[in-house]
Amino acid sequence: MDYRFSDKLAHLKPSAIREIFKNLTDPTIISFAAGNPAAESFPVSDLARLSADIFETTPITALQYSITEGYPPLRDAVAKRQKEVFGIGRSLADGYGFEDSTLIVSGGQQGIELACKALCNEGDVVLCEDPTFIGSLNSFRSNGAIPIGIPMEEDGISPEALEQAILQHPNAKMLYLIPTFQNPTGITTGVEKRRRIYEIAKKYRLPILEDNPYGELRFAGCEIPTIKSMDTEGLVIYCSSFSKILSAGMRLGFVLAPAAIVSKMAVAKQGEDVHTNIFFQMLCHRFITECDLNAHIEKIRAIYRHKCSLMLSELERHLPPEITFTRPEGGLFLWCTLPDRVDMNAFVQEALARKVAVVPGTAFLCDTEGTSHSFRLNYSTPSDEQIVEGVKRLAEAAKAVL
Amino acid sequence: MDYRFSDKLAHLKPSAIREIFKNLTDPTIISFAAGNPAAESFPVSDLARLSADIFETTPITALQYSITEGYPPLRDAVAKRQKEVFGIGRSLADGYGFEDSTLIVSGGQQGIELACKALCNEGDVVLCEDPTFIGSLNSFRSNGAIPIGIPMEEDGISPEALEQAILQHPNAKMLYLIPTFQNPTGITTGVEKRRRIYEIAKKYRLPILEDNPYGELRFAGCEIPTIKSMDTEGLVIYCSSFSKILSAGMRLGFVLAPAAIVSKMAVAKQGEDVHTNIFFQMLCHRFITECDLNAHIEKIRAIYRHKCSLMLSELERHLPPEITFTRPEGGLFLWCTLPDRVDMNAFVQEALARKVAVVPGTAFLCDTEGTSHSFRLNYSTPSDEQIVEGVKRLAEAAKAVL
Repeated sequence: MDYRFSDKLAHLKPSAIREIFKNLTDPTIISFAAGNPAAESFPVSDLARLSADIFETTPITALQYSITEGYPPLRDAVAKRQKEVFGIGRSLADGYGFEDSTLIVSGGQQGIELACKALCNEGDVVLCEDPTFIGSLNSFRSNGAIPIGIPMEEDGISPEALEQAILQHPNAKMLYLIPTFQNPTGITTGVEKRRRIYEIAKKYRLPILEDNPYGELRFAGCEIPTIKSMDTEGLVIYCSSFSKILSAGMRLGFVLAPAAIVSKMAVAKQGEDVHTNIFFQMLCHRFITECDLNAHIEKIRAIYRHKCSLMLSELERHLPPEITFTRPEGGLFLWCTLPDRVDMNAFVQEALARKVAVVPGTAFLCDTEGTSHSFRLNYSTPSDEQIVEGVKRLAEAAKAVL
Repeated sequence: MDYRFSDKLAHLKPSAIREIFKNLTDPTIISFAAGNPAAESFPVSDLARLSADIFETTPITALQYSITEGYPPLRDAVAKRQKEVFGIGRSLADGYGFEDSTLIVSGGQQGIELACKALCNEGDVVLCEDPTFIGSLNSFRSNGAIPIGIPMEEDGISPEALEQAILQHPNAKMLYLIPTFQNPTGITTGVEKRRRIYEIAKKYRLPILEDNPYGELRFAGCEIPTIKSMDTEGLVIYCSSFSKILSAGMRLGFVLAPAAIVSKMAVAKQGEDVHTNIFFQMLCHRFITECDLNAHIEKIRAIYRHKCSLMLSELERHLPPEITFTRPEGGLFLWCTLPDRVDMNAFVQEALARKVAVVPGTAFLCDTEGTSHSFRLNYSTPSDEQIVEGVKRLAEAAKAVL
């Protein structure tokens, strides 16, 4: 029979990346298309030991229904760490007239989706960096919200362009940003721009969704304050995840936002999954309070510092100079741009013909009909050998289309 | 600052039950308000052993990103079991012109929410049994859909009333039913009614969401065919869960529905949580394929048979005959009704004053302004001693208001 789907889902396609991921069954293909953390980044033996202990000491709590907001000791530990590492989280005593609260979510993705559900009606606009994370675009679209892009510059979006976009879209309900090691570009928004973006959002009372899944993964350069740390009005919903530092498959993230917003997001979360897997909430809590999380993160940074620098030096060595690329100071991705005269899709096909997979830039655009001369490369998943061999093949593909 | 929330969430309250649950910190209160499976129903030692083995043999797969539709061996095992136990799941070879597919979700709740997201625009109607499961009501409302109730009778909703409701609500996009051991009433819809309900849905091309979380928990009476097993048109989305037979806290459920619908629900799921905790998907797969699931379920049935029968006999012994109650053949709940002249909220307060918690019937109504003379009792969570003592206190509360 012919099904009548909701308007928001009738024409929505699955994420191009997750489809690529699903079809990458040919083991001879080198994939720079994924966004997976390196397998070496999972602290397997600690997790195994703590899991066994949870089954031994608190099995019923770990298997029974729990509360929507999250396992209280984990919420506390998260709030404490975010305060220490990023200086974020207000209490009423800070005198800003609002307080932040923590919500445990089923991966950072759920935090993004719940923020949209709480703030946007169908047909409302979410302003985004363009290009931006495809998963977030799909979250917004699957709630009937319309992503509108503000072009990404070398150091983040232009505050002037943001103000223009706000004036053009009076039904914009949220500004979505990944200011640090952005996906897909690897770009970090500078501190001055962050301040000016916050001031504009404040002027127009526009909530900011600050997505920071890679914030702990800086391997070069200096720390830059989060936008949330500048929040004096209760405007910023801060969203992050344990996917890149503990395990992506456990689906565990968190939101730190004004309590009034968290409480609406919690109502929406009740309707989605009641609460996040409580066993892994307890496991995560025990890991971050009993193991040396900082030392573990330092280890992951070293892995990505090495892999990124290897990929960059191979790109420099083999790619024709007409192809430019970003130089990320952290995170998992870099962004390559072909000369305007070259057809990006033809390049991606040439690369695939040489058994190397990249994600076409069009996948990350707010405008589904837009064109792009860029593609995304991931360096966290492939091995050193795959990086070396894969970049060589990319260079051959480039020669074929240049 | 004053936040502008989406219309769908602006006035939505957290689930009354989850709020009660959160506030039940006084250990002297006997709670008949929860919906938790009995702690004895979790196969702790098998889960502990299999978890250790997963950490030993396949840790990276269990901690890394996975695919949205679910762990393929688990999807296969679920499809196989549903076919064996409930006779459901069509292939194209069956000649009905559609095929069913399986989607692993983060608890049955997510299946319900995704079905609504896929089929309903904001303002569309979901027809429901009245009263019905509060979690589903909140899923519908948090998507902007409007639940409209069809009164529950002793053996399920009336097919005539259903047809009337369809005619009155041309924007009804889905019929939501819990035909077996309904939450909150414990009522099972008879087979003849099921057939007639399916025929009416077919006549009007109205998709049915059949929620069957308690289906395996029959402890009396005879099996009744699921509505999904009658599906010749691809009209039924069947939703169930491992919460009541393995662990509620792991948040693992499944949807079995026509492939075209599952594929839309998977797109929506990508935007919500990418995929369900993969470690527990693998753990669940190993449990149901390596352990004796049928023997385990038989054990749970025996626990609930005993607890339900104890509660029923205590209710008979102590409650004044003016208070009636249902006699479930499975599941976790029974439904008590006070005489019309008694104020239900006053009764609930009298019960709480005697330190016994029940859920007021109004919590389960489609009409948030509706009145009820009923309340829900849960027998799966309390101990035998608590059941005996709690019913005594309920009888005292009844005397105070009758």
